[in-house]
Amino acid sequence: MKNMAVILAGCGYLDGAEIRESVLTLLALDTAGAKYSIFASNKDQHHVVDHLTGDEVVGESRNVLEESARIARGAVQDIAKLSPDNFDALIIPGGFGVAKNMCSFAFDGSAASVDEQVVGKIQAFNIAKKPIGAVCIAPALVALAIGNKQPTLTIGTDEGTAGELVKLGAKHQECVTSDCVVDVANKVVTTPAYMDDNANLADVYAGISKLISSVIQLT
Amino acid sequence: MKNMAVILAGCGYLDGAEIRESVLTLLALDTAGAKYSIFASNKDQHHVVDHLTGDEVVGESRNVLEESARIARGAVQDIAKLSPDNFDALIIPGGFGVAKNMCSFAFDGSAASVDEQVVGKIQAFNIAKKPIGAVCIAPALVALAIGNKQPTLTIGTDEGTAGELVKLGAKHQECVTSDCVVDVANKVVTTPAYMDDNANLADVYAGISKLISSVIQLT
Repeated sequence: MKNMAVILAGCGYLDGAEIRESVLTLLALDTAGAKYSIFASNKDQHHVVDHLTGDEVVGESRNVLEESARIARGAVQDIAKLSPDNFDALIIPGGFGVAKNMCSFAFDGSAASVDEQVVGKIQAFNIAKKPIGAVCIAPALVALAIGNKQPTLTIGTDEGTAGELVKLGAKHQECVTSDCVVDVANKVVTTPAYMDDNANLADVYAGISKLISSVIQLT
Repeated sequence: MKNMAVILAGCGYLDGAEIRESVLTLLALDTAGAKYSIFASNKDQHHVVDHLTGDEVVGESRNVLEESARIARGAVQDIAKLSPDNFDALIIPGGFGVAKNMCSFAFDGSAASVDEQVVGKIQAFNIAKKPIGAVCIAPALVALAIGNKQPTLTIGTDEGTAGELVKLGAKHQECVTSDCVVDVANKVVTTPAYMDDNANLADVYAGISKLISSVIQLT
């Protein structure tokens, strides 16, 4: 049975992990017969966004690990405890939290600063030749971590975002929501999911399912 | 194409809607080719729980509608706007939020007080002979709303909780996570989902998928 590490970035697509992508990642792992452990950074989110209005909630703070625990049903550990030696692959669902809490890509594009702890884990999986699956905007974090390896990635069809990935050294390949892009040499698999805000949820699940199957094949 | 109303109780199983059940309800609806609109109460949650520790967060408040918007990706309306005339059926995912924010069943069992607005909507769907699907602990809310109709419900295999439903007039039928119970006469469908804390996510999805199929058949 394959054993996967999943990193979450909070709970809510505007300031944390994309909830649906996170749940469907876990469903796809469970359906494929893989085990998983969930990890998150024990630090405050970049900010809190009211998901009804889209406005920042001034003066409120939420902790990434505590909010991720809502999706994880409490079964989430501090990412400091994530040892790539113990896992066969790494999966990162999307959401703005990936581009706000794990790095500043949402604000700074290819000039983003990064959370060194998270990026270190991604690099460690890559160096150990263990596959990495990245959903939605998470490929931007992968590009920030291992762009020097020139991975082939997708963030769907958004040319502006794709251009930022290319600046980081990545090659961009367009992809529909229901599919994924597999870079066999670098063992990186990516799927656009809610990069298309109007994506159909069944298509999002199809893309994530293919990503999980491809990651398992690369282990 | 069937048009469903979904009521969420927040975002997080200890103080709001069970996130996974909510997402899998939407996935099952999408996969079955049904449309849906999401509704939630515009009021503060009963309380906020740290999902990492399970402890109440004293002094913090969160709004049910705003938190539900995290799962709904912003596409959620005040339940005051929910008109059963506009929908073919009603679906209520579970989570402690149903038993804390929509009624006080989590604290008071069959003696619970209820949110009259939410219960009024459930009764209106029932009076209009439109089916109601209830997941996990949501059957308790259904029993509080229409127990006088003696609906057959399941909350899985928890005898204590089942006994409280029986006190409200319901008949309880045991059910495994991957299945659902259909009361054809009352047009009520229920599935246990995370009433078993250790449930397998693929089984939860199987049960919710069967619930959605059964609800659609009853429309």
